[in-house]
Amino acid sequence: MKALRFDGKNLSLGEKAVPKPAPGEALVRVKLAGICSTDMEILRGYAGFTGTPGHEFVGTVETVNGVGQGWVGQRVVGEINIGCHAPDCSWCNKGMERHCPNRQVLGIQKRDGAMAEYLTLPIRNLLAVPGHLSDESAVLVEPLAAGFEILEQLHLQPAMTVAILGDGKLGLLTNRALRSAATALTHIGKHPGKLALAEGPGITTLLLNELKNEQFDVVVDATGSVSGFETAIRHVRPRGILVLKTTVSNSKPLDMTPVVVNEITVLGSRCGRFEPALRALSDGLDVEALIEKRFPLEQAIYAFELAATPGSLKVLLEMPPGKNR
Amino acid sequence: MKALRFDGKNLSLGEKAVPKPAPGEALVRVKLAGICSTDMEILRGYAGFTGTPGHEFVGTVETVNGVGQGWVGQRVVGEINIGCHAPDCSWCNKGMERHCPNRQVLGIQKRDGAMAEYLTLPIRNLLAVPGHLSDESAVLVEPLAAGFEILEQLHLQPAMTVAILGDGKLGLLTNRALRSAATALTHIGKHPGKLALAEGPGITTLLLNELKNEQFDVVVDATGSVSGFETAIRHVRPRGILVLKTTVSNSKPLDMTPVVVNEITVLGSRCGRFEPALRALSDGLDVEALIEKRFPLEQAIYAFELAATPGSLKVLLEMPPGKNR
Repeated sequence: MKALRFDGKNLSLGEKAVPKPAPGEALVRVKLAGICSTDMEILRGYAGFTGTPGHEFVGTVETVNGVGQGWVGQRVVGEINIGCHAPDCSWCNKGMERHCPNRQVLGIQKRDGAMAEYLTLPIRNLLAVPGHLSDESAVLVEPLAAGFEILEQLHLQPAMTVAILGDGKLGLLTNRALRSAATALTHIGKHPGKLALAEGPGITTLLLNELKNEQFDVVVDATGSVSGFETAIRHVRPRGILVLKTTVSNSKPLDMTPVVVNEITVLGSRCGRFEPALRALSDGLDVEALIEKRFPLEQAIYAFELAATPGSLKVLLEMPPGKNR
Repeated sequence: MKALRFDGKNLSLGEKAVPKPAPGEALVRVKLAGICSTDMEILRGYAGFTGTPGHEFVGTVETVNGVGQGWVGQRVVGEINIGCHAPDCSWCNKGMERHCPNRQVLGIQKRDGAMAEYLTLPIRNLLAVPGHLSDESAVLVEPLAAGFEILEQLHLQPAMTVAILGDGKLGLLTNRALRSAATALTHIGKHPGKLALAEGPGITTLLLNELKNEQFDVVVDATGSVSGFETAIRHVRPRGILVLKTTVSNSKPLDMTPVVVNEITVLGSRCGRFEPALRALSDGLDVEALIEKRFPLEQAIYAFELAATPGSLKVLLEMPPGKNR
């Protein structure tokens, strides 16, 4: 099969054997895979990953090893954290494979990912995609779930003021997720065109240079930059909460003094459960406007270049429709 | 009166007029003042403060301007944050002068501090010191209250594991405050001699180089160093809490990736209310072992040098007992 490979230095398209699903796993033929900022970080060395990247996908179950043959032919998305499920793993035991210390993460940690014709995942990680949902919506379940994760971690009360900083992919998907909370939402960005995608009932959009001394109960930093973190800190009220959504691959000078002086809570936030995100999409939440372009897998290198362009929205890779392995 | 002065560059002992208390304020004759790490940071430029430093004190009320003449002659400690108390200040209105955006802070922000023969403070900031409490205990109410602040911000549940990192003044005072919570407490430090001061019923003490892969629900970073922050991050379990207690005057390179990946909560923590700390001392909590040495105000420069020595415990300044202003 065709597979994108990262050898620790370079990304290239190559041929690779179709993976064999372990007992309890499914072989999934990938239809679409999304390029995430984390993939770009991986190419810069993040997590020391080598292999096939890609953790955002929609595909169809081709075979199942063992029980669960009813999944064959089903269109699916899949949770990307594969827990150890050892009998004594306290994380897996409470359904928190996302924090299992021995986990694999699809296309990020110890497991080949979705930028290939096929991938394998445990059956327990799969979610069926409702028939009326487009592939383009379904492939965005994973990053949308990362937005919903904030609602799992934090009780956003109706009287709270919440700001999202950053009008990139993650900021706009977080915007979609936080619409389901009844808070006053302000979205702050740099690009009028992208900020337009943040608009909605009851949502205030604001260009960064229009921002004055406003302070919010909660600020979500979805900028992925140190200057974004510093802006976020300035606009969180004392004793407020800064939600940190983005990973960067290296240390940056950060002044943590305002965190202490203003007793700010900095809340790290990563992957979320797929179920609420998939349900929101199924109920009509529109995310397709956040897609920039789709490319065939053969043009993956170019697609990565476009995805790395500042201001680019979600770039998708389309796997070949071929039937042969 | 004699007063220590910081002009933005140098610290020196000089003569200054005795301050006049504004209406609602008391003139307090200072007996003892403590040197805090924040004072050392101020000498490095923290908060841009100039004037008389010092925010840890015990003294006696000399005069009161207006109502409250009953305070005259009373031995007192005093909350260091002076709120604006404007009718529309939401912070002052809820008793949170500590976060009033227009606050003064004794010896730190827009108000001369305690390293002088006299200081002024609003009557509402004063707390009477019970007769059986020594001056040496009372002067430590302020930094002890900073330890109790953690208990105001955070619900420490009995089943939680809590570690304090750092065996300096702040770490050891935090140790004293957290003894009142029914959690499993581990105190980690570098100096066997100081770590001995952390011992107590049910408390595990551990030298930093004996620390392996243990992870705790809550880690309090009281080291004041970047390496301490990084150690703390490593030893907080996923979704655990890192309490950040120390302010530093400049930016340091910090890798926030583990905060995001492990969804850690970083909780900034600063000044606390005096009442619980004063009550604990009054009930017999012993802090006098944390005092390194006392010096007359005339030897303040030398006292600051000693306080700045790594490993030094609490250094106190003793004001002249003279009766003349």
